[in-house]
Amino acid sequence: AHQEPKSFNGSLKRVAVEELSRQGCAVTVSDLYAMDFEPRATRKDIAGAVSNPEVFSYGVEAYEACKKRCLTSDILEEQKKVQEADLVIFQFPLYWFSVPAIMKGWMDRVLCQGFAFDFPGIYDAGFLKGKLALLSLTTGGTAEMYTRTGASGDFRYFLWPLQHGALHFCGFQVLAPQISFAPEYASE
Amino acid sequence: AHQEPKSFNGSLKRVAVEELSRQGCAVTVSDLYAMDFEPRATRKDIAGAVSNPEVFSYGVEAYEACKKRCLTSDILEEQKKVQEADLVIFQFPLYWFSVPAIMKGWMDRVLCQGFAFDFPGIYDAGFLKGKLALLSLTTGGTAEMYTRTGASGDFRYFLWPLQHGALHFCGFQVLAPQISFAPEYASE
Repeated sequence: AHQEPKSFNGSLKRVAVEELSRQGCAVTVSDLYAMDFEPRATRKDIAGAVSNPEVFSYGVEAYEACKKRCLTSDILEEQKKVQEADLVIFQFPLYWFSVPAIMKGWMDRVLCQGFAFDFPGIYDAGFLKGKLALLSLTTGGTAEMYTRTGASGDFRYFLWPLQHGALHFCGFQVLAPQISFAPEYASE
Repeated sequence: AHQEPKSFNGSLKRVAVEELSRQGCAVTVSDLYAMDFEPRATRKDIAGAVSNPEVFSYGVEAYEACKKRCLTSDILEEQKKVQEADLVIFQFPLYWFSVPAIMKGWMDRVLCQGFAFDFPGIYDAGFLKGKLALLSLTTGGTAEMYTRTGASGDFRYFLWPLQHGALHFCGFQVLAPQISFAPEYASE
């Protein structure tokens, strides 16, 4: 997720695609800004009638729609890509110690109950078990800031909600992150 | 941020508005879903020309646009509300250990460099110092799951990126969070 193909994030994405393709992997890219991906979780995500028209619960309705295969097409397309993937790489610049809203929306909408998990069926029993996930991110702050005694704390603190709360929750095995600290200030 | 006014989140918002108003406070509400708030940080946030048309950097361009007062109107309106506030309450259901994408987009776009912080001018020197912030959130999981030995870990782990990485970074003094664990399963 980056607005600019010529950015450092864009380069990291391109190099990853080239190298994985060279190794014989089939690579599918979801360029969220280029797709103008919808981040908002709303009633529009359910094609057709909702189960409770009086009080709208996104989680309940998305779960029902997932089971009935009537989620909106952009969600179904992303779910298909995830289903077919052995490894999902998330490439993004860190915004407020997390993913940019457009990628948060991808997580909120694509990783719905019934597709990525159910109860039981979370963490090691999440539906995406057997798949790998990797966060590749850039930061504004330097590596020194992201240490236990630095102003921003250990970088592992901000990884927790993403790696454990979202990815591991869905069953992903999370690989070591690729963090490019402060590329804006790097010389080479 | 909730899609449904009749939800538990909607009720918490309404009660907070009523009680604060009763105490004589002037309360302004940004109902993000009702506003169809834009979460995506894009070129469209800059009204007029960008400083570098060759390579688009959102952070750089938003900073420049902020200084020249040419950010898009929905951002300026939210910044005005923040500027006038002594206390900002964020009311939301926890999505993936964080705020829903629509609220993440509010943070990404509204709390830009030049408005909420600059360098130096972060953490205790953030531009929003003197203001209070409070997270009021609901969870799907129970309080037991959000303990150090529970499956989801201590709830304070997921608060870190929001309370420290975003709010404290901008200078907010963060009040103790109001967490309503698993209201779906509560009896009364």
